[in-house]
Amino acid sequence: MSLINFKHRLGGRGKRMAQAAGLLLGSLLFVLSSAHSAAATDPLPSWSEGAIKSTLTEFVQAVTEPGGKDFVAPSNRVATFDNDGTLWLEYPIYTQLRFAFTRVHELAPQHPEWKTTMPFKAVLDNDMEALGATGMKGLMEIMMATHSGMTAPEFEQEAAAWLATAKNDRFKHTYPELVYQPQLELLEYLRANGFKTYIVSGGGIQFMRPMTEKAYGIPPNQVVGSSVVSEFQMKDGKPALVRMPKINFIDDKAGKPVGIYQHIGQRPILAFGNSDGDIEMLQYTKAGEGRSLGLLLHHTDAVREYAYDRNSHVGKLDKGLDEAAASGWILVNMKTDWKVIFPFELED
Amino acid sequence: MSLINFKHRLGGRGKRMAQAAGLLLGSLLFVLSSAHSAAATDPLPSWSEGAIKSTLTEFVQAVTEPGGKDFVAPSNRVATFDNDGTLWLEYPIYTQLRFAFTRVHELAPQHPEWKTTMPFKAVLDNDMEALGATGMKGLMEIMMATHSGMTAPEFEQEAAAWLATAKNDRFKHTYPELVYQPQLELLEYLRANGFKTYIVSGGGIQFMRPMTEKAYGIPPNQVVGSSVVSEFQMKDGKPALVRMPKINFIDDKAGKPVGIYQHIGQRPILAFGNSDGDIEMLQYTKAGEGRSLGLLLHHTDAVREYAYDRNSHVGKLDKGLDEAAASGWILVNMKTDWKVIFPFELED
Repeated sequence: MSLINFKHRLGGRGKRMAQAAGLLLGSLLFVLSSAHSAAATDPLPSWSEGAIKSTLTEFVQAVTEPGGKDFVAPSNRVATFDNDGTLWLEYPIYTQLRFAFTRVHELAPQHPEWKTTMPFKAVLDNDMEALGATGMKGLMEIMMATHSGMTAPEFEQEAAAWLATAKNDRFKHTYPELVYQPQLELLEYLRANGFKTYIVSGGGIQFMRPMTEKAYGIPPNQVVGSSVVSEFQMKDGKPALVRMPKINFIDDKAGKPVGIYQHIGQRPILAFGNSDGDIEMLQYTKAGEGRSLGLLLHHTDAVREYAYDRNSHVGKLDKGLDEAAASGWILVNMKTDWKVIFPFELED
Repeated sequence: MSLINFKHRLGGRGKRMAQAAGLLLGSLLFVLSSAHSAAATDPLPSWSEGAIKSTLTEFVQAVTEPGGKDFVAPSNRVATFDNDGTLWLEYPIYTQLRFAFTRVHELAPQHPEWKTTMPFKAVLDNDMEALGATGMKGLMEIMMATHSGMTAPEFEQEAAAWLATAKNDRFKHTYPELVYQPQLELLEYLRANGFKTYIVSGGGIQFMRPMTEKAYGIPPNQVVGSSVVSEFQMKDGKPALVRMPKINFIDDKAGKPVGIYQHIGQRPILAFGNSDGDIEMLQYTKAGEGRSLGLLLHHTDAVREYAYDRNSHVGKLDKGLDEAAASGWILVNMKTDWKVIFPFELED
């Protein structure tokens, strides 16, 4: 029923009522349209108003303004994001390591010797201290035993199944649900402005790929990561890619600019990390000609997520904190700059 | 002036004239609309009518028909193309080797010892027979001496400058102009149907990247190729990627499926090559579930381009010819299947 019909039916007697209703409706429409226009103009609703958010939007406006002095052609709008601790939860144990531990338990019946052999014994006993004592060598043994010896599709299926079902103890959500809402908005905002968004992570490239498209809108070919050697073999008379127990590439620290060069072939104009493993990616990004932005997420929220930096065993941010100030990198304070952390907070 | 007004103004006297004009106009419109509709419906005008062209269009229709039994989601429409001899000229010398020879001449003043040292002496003397006698080891020495020892942007600039200016002796065109017109149409046709098109080449990834976007519409991150090791270093106080004299990856033969797995992370549903170096890429592509297409270009046109296959020193197609029949791969006959070879033929 339109307002005119409403007035007509009420006749003279209801004129004031109709006016009141008109006012009410007007206010309501005004509120709705303001809300709508705020939503339409704020691409980063989970980011707190302030210097960081302004820096992001000002940067995007500057590089996309045709004819502007900082304009960057769409084909050169490359943005790279670390994954662990930058796009999704990494604390207190890297998600891929959780997956590896699960695989050790699953594969244990085929390896009776693991019951008495380190580092596998430590995993089977859930003895993280004993595991830690085996150092990087122990971790590598676990990674090789759980990430190689199968075909590419077999591994993809293992990873996808685990990612779809395994739940985090504290947050009671699967790991692809424990991605950061402000970063989802930033990725979408960048893409809406002609950027290509990439993951450049120390994590395994093939472990991430089953989840990046759905979780982040990032297709498999825009994921750069660490890898084992793969071999093309005939297996049971069929051509297959078999994952070998040998490191091919470590996409961390100085490996990140190398991974970017090999995979992307272009220097980013925006790079976002959260740990000392991202320093070289930010250095490489900022060494380019023209405007660029380097960002580090500082995990400062012990209540909603975790607070860790200089002395953390995971996602250590030490030299990065010092260099950020000296190099003009933006430090994003999770506690104050993010209104929301996980998407599930919006649903609750 | 509309036809109705025209009739009106002429009155009874001009009725037949108007009818004639109407017929003429009608015929003209018919001719125009036929020409327009032929152009609109034939995405592959440089491909001869026949079995090969029908196979291509039927395949694309089958995998893009929503609800059809062979439907493939757009995100899985991956097409990979070899470069040398598949997308551009490779005979009688790979283009990248021509570039390397030019670089040897350019760098010779800084290396007086090259005048008397093989394999460089052979290049400086233009003695291809002596160079051939140095074998793969000699070629590798030349590649390392000309493709490493500089930063990434320095190499990119060298490659881009050479590609923009060096002309082929026979065809009097630059090499990026010596791409195959029917393949440009096929790449565009595939992209128009939701495919992502990739290059998967034994050639150097960083040598190709300066030309692939402009020549093929393929951006740098969709180029897979061979590479040298790169290192992230501080050079003159600035972060730089430096190319080292060491092979990182050979993207040929069994390396092609590996390169596809690492870079793209998805199995192609269409792969197009021209030599025995492409066999494994076609095997891998055809081993996937669902519809797929494997194609080999057979260089059969000694007049317009070159004719070579089983005994060629470049782009050898021997086992591939035998396996094509056994494996259901499509052999494209350059001489009969391609009406046009190079884009410049359309301009002349």
